[in-house]
Amino acid sequence: MSRGRFITLEGIEGAGKSTQVEALASMLRSRGLEVVTTREPGGSPIAERLRTLLLDPLNAGMSDTAELLLMFAARAEHLKQTILPALARGAWVISDRFTDATYAYQGGGRGIDLARIGLLEQLVQGDLRPDLVLVFDLPPAVGLERAQARSGGKDRFEAEDLRFFQGARALYLERAGETPERYRVLDATRPIDRVREQILSLVGTFVDDALGRSGHTNPHGG
Amino acid sequence: MSRGRFITLEGIEGAGKSTQVEALASMLRSRGLEVVTTREPGGSPIAERLRTLLLDPLNAGMSDTAELLLMFAARAEHLKQTILPALARGAWVISDRFTDATYAYQGGGRGIDLARIGLLEQLVQGDLRPDLVLVFDLPPAVGLERAQARSGGKDRFEAEDLRFFQGARALYLERAGETPERYRVLDATRPIDRVREQILSLVGTFVDDALGRSGHTNPHGG
Repeated sequence: MSRGRFITLEGIEGAGKSTQVEALASMLRSRGLEVVTTREPGGSPIAERLRTLLLDPLNAGMSDTAELLLMFAARAEHLKQTILPALARGAWVISDRFTDATYAYQGGGRGIDLARIGLLEQLVQGDLRPDLVLVFDLPPAVGLERAQARSGGKDRFEAEDLRFFQGARALYLERAGETPERYRVLDATRPIDRVREQILSLVGTFVDDALGRSGHTNPHGG
Repeated sequence: MSRGRFITLEGIEGAGKSTQVEALASMLRSRGLEVVTTREPGGSPIAERLRTLLLDPLNAGMSDTAELLLMFAARAEHLKQTILPALARGAWVISDRFTDATYAYQGGGRGIDLARIGLLEQLVQGDLRPDLVLVFDLPPAVGLERAQARSGGKDRFEAEDLRFFQGARALYLERAGETPERYRVLDATRPIDRVREQILSLVGTFVDDALGRSGHTNPHGG
């Protein structure tokens, strides 16, 4: 059996990622694939406890270094408990955020040295990287307005200012530009239906390639 | 005003560290010093929440990497909120465990590569190291017997086996041997009163040196 594929959805607050996860999962299942949907921070019992701690507005004074280490501690659990076992049995994993979010938020947003993030990425993930990253791009002002329209109070990240999200957005685009074969940037200002169509189309092509139905040999087959 | 000094007490379960912290603080206060006593994991509000998570026997399946990162996340908070401000205002800080415990437990006990621990130590602490480390040494079988005589259930570390603590003890002694000028190894099988006398005597000498009362110039004075 071949290893599954790992697809992540990335973007700042209000980009509309979460609403697309199920549409994408549904399409993949219709292709006969086992699909696991998950999210970060979180995705396993201990990681979800860390998510609560990371998002809690009462922890506003948390040091940037502690925040960075907690993100990767949660990720280590998420990988061990959820992502790696699923990929190993051939399931496809769709995660609402992964390490690109750490580069964007802690790197682009908080200004943490990207080399430090890379060091922790290597320590926690080894060579594992997402096979496909969908970047939901939109101006932070638009995203924050959408996020504010939701019910409930702001979490610790939603409470950040425009400059923080501008830094995060820039980092997402920078990373997408560096490795275009693994990244797709979507215009997330468009209506949800149009974004969904684009996702289903481009991931459909990705599935064709992965399953070798378009005549290609699966380069990752194991 | 000169920077305070940072003294840590280290040792496996049942070594008797915790009971000596107050005697040591009391002696230092009698010398006119401001003293902050603290502990790891913990020592600040967020770090204490992480302590709860780290010690909870329900989290028995936590990955070694997550455990390691959580220890350093808690330490980053402990440093920012508690240790560094105290040292900066001239207070002396006594901590029941610090990074040597990570080398001993996660390195010697769990077998995590010491270079990984060193990398996180540098990331979180920069050049900060304790000025004096008191290692409470005793055979793990004796320590575990003492720890089991305490009321209450075992935490996630106390539930480890003898081999784990033999590894931890060996690492403590190895580190003490590598930097003898900063470490003192105490025979913790002796009665509490005798251990206390030895601590008060050797830390007394350390204070004399630090305050320059024995005629030495304080090499760390700032």
